[in-house]
Amino acid sequence: MSAGRLTRGDEPLPELVAAAREGSARAVARLITLVEEASPRLREVMTQLAPLCGGAQVIGLTGAPGVGKSTTTSALVSAYRRRGQRVGVLAIDPSSPFSGGALLGDRVRMQDHATDPGVFIRSMASRGQLGGLSWATPQALRVLDAAGCDLVLIETVGVGQAEVEIASLADSTVVLLAPGMGDAIQAAKAGILEVADIFVVNKADRDGADQTVRELKGMLSLGFTDAAPEGWRPPVCKTVAARGDGIDEVVDALERHREWLAASGERERRRAARARGEIAAIALTRLRSRMDELRGQAAMAGLAADVAAGRLDPYSAADRLIEGVTA
Amino acid sequence: MSAGRLTRGDEPLPELVAAAREGSARAVARLITLVEEASPRLREVMTQLAPLCGGAQVIGLTGAPGVGKSTTTSALVSAYRRRGQRVGVLAIDPSSPFSGGALLGDRVRMQDHATDPGVFIRSMASRGQLGGLSWATPQALRVLDAAGCDLVLIETVGVGQAEVEIASLADSTVVLLAPGMGDAIQAAKAGILEVADIFVVNKADRDGADQTVRELKGMLSLGFTDAAPEGWRPPVCKTVAARGDGIDEVVDALERHREWLAASGERERRRAARARGEIAAIALTRLRSRMDELRGQAAMAGLAADVAAGRLDPYSAADRLIEGVTA
Repeated sequence: MSAGRLTRGDEPLPELVAAAREGSARAVARLITLVEEASPRLREVMTQLAPLCGGAQVIGLTGAPGVGKSTTTSALVSAYRRRGQRVGVLAIDPSSPFSGGALLGDRVRMQDHATDPGVFIRSMASRGQLGGLSWATPQALRVLDAAGCDLVLIETVGVGQAEVEIASLADSTVVLLAPGMGDAIQAAKAGILEVADIFVVNKADRDGADQTVRELKGMLSLGFTDAAPEGWRPPVCKTVAARGDGIDEVVDALERHREWLAASGERERRRAARARGEIAAIALTRLRSRMDELRGQAAMAGLAADVAAGRLDPYSAADRLIEGVTA
Repeated sequence: MSAGRLTRGDEPLPELVAAAREGSARAVARLITLVEEASPRLREVMTQLAPLCGGAQVIGLTGAPGVGKSTTTSALVSAYRRRGQRVGVLAIDPSSPFSGGALLGDRVRMQDHATDPGVFIRSMASRGQLGGLSWATPQALRVLDAAGCDLVLIETVGVGQAEVEIASLADSTVVLLAPGMGDAIQAAKAGILEVADIFVVNKADRDGADQTVRELKGMLSLGFTDAAPEGWRPPVCKTVAARGDGIDEVVDALERHREWLAASGERERRRAARARGEIAAIALTRLRSRMDELRGQAAMAGLAADVAAGRLDPYSAADRLIEGVTA
């Protein structure tokens, strides 16, 4: 496996990109692996992908554990496949430090799509960032986008910063709730009301579903009384994803949101914001790795010894470090 | 309050540092506030503090919620005060985004020391970093060190990365456990065995205390069979901190560890590592804030628009951003 990777690593990138563009799952997987490995060839990959990007609608899907994210994602994939769309799925797993195909075994529901050439599914670790997206997510997204996916679904557990991060990445953010979890209040507390473009109350056949919908709508009406008339009001959909109930309504809502994004100019605003975040993240990662290299070097050891001994303050030492990093 | 702060902000730093050095709690508080506010005057503060630092023994104290960290910290403060030592306490509160004196109201046990001029207590928020220490912690530590504290106790909840971070900051790391929480196993899983210099099984009057001690020692003996003979073997102390039982033994263990640190050269190694982390953190914070400034500027907007439109790849954009950051 490892040896095979090495061999494939020497594959010319233009051919790899072309193969991905033609729908080769192997080529897409290989490119995402280059992203995850922070390969030195990544710059070349991204240069080639750049002009191919921008076609995919990026849908973020988040919610607390147990609300049925995987089931809903899988149902959405089916619905989009019925409409003839190519779909990419990035499933972010915050509980695992490992990435790649290994995790897919856990995602039983996703296996319905495992043999469909119009669906590409990838699990990514969030590398210990609790609830956070991996730094590699935006670039994996870029690979799927360039590979001609009409849609990319990014699924992540809604804890900590995940909702905010996923919203910063997605064109449309879907927040999942389930009845009887006090979720509307929790959502309000967690600031989810601000990031959600569409709410889905899943497991709507359970007791309390209507109450959750009511609470949610109540809170939304409180928050949006001053909204501009041209603004987007997040709809609240009810689903039983395990049976596929209500999924078409979610797809319709996503389609309306896509149209609104384009008409309002919000789509360009969001994508520019995403690009800003992506550029800054790459720059920061690069500076940090240069700094990590320096930390092991003699110059850093000298600075640290001076600071530890009180001969130098840490700010002046940081200045000298920055000189080294950016030289 | 706010107006008062502004006035005090104009106070000449040499006088503030001198007052802190003479034990003025107000001056110490003011300096830590400058740290927390990331004041532009911080560089000047740190330059003046640098030659005064290095005298304090830094003790990290961590453990799961409910093991009795505040009580143990308070008992340790009392023990050190009886020995005539000046003590600083930094209580890191990961659950709150707020810092400063307001939180001290919660720390009822600490109020025993509130009027003791030989004790300085400060709560610090960890700014949403789950279980992490605030970036400001090393510098607040520096203030207490320079102010002539013989000891600085840093107390934080042991979740996520906190143990590792506290160990990277402290000369001696104390890990607290309590009986009947399956803590020995949990500690092993969380990697605490590697970071602890001293274990304290608190609430040792409860059922299961001896078993917790036994499990812990068992696991330690497994892990340390190959340890060098001159290495430090973490002792396991039993305490009932609420009654002060066993606290003197903890102080003795800390004293032995201090001597070992000095004799083995480990103290210098740890302090150099701490300085490396501190320098890198300041440098990274500075680079990040420069980048944040750039994110709002026209040049960044242009780069982002180019990336969003596929005219430029994010790596090349990041290169140009780095040029801007480091210019």
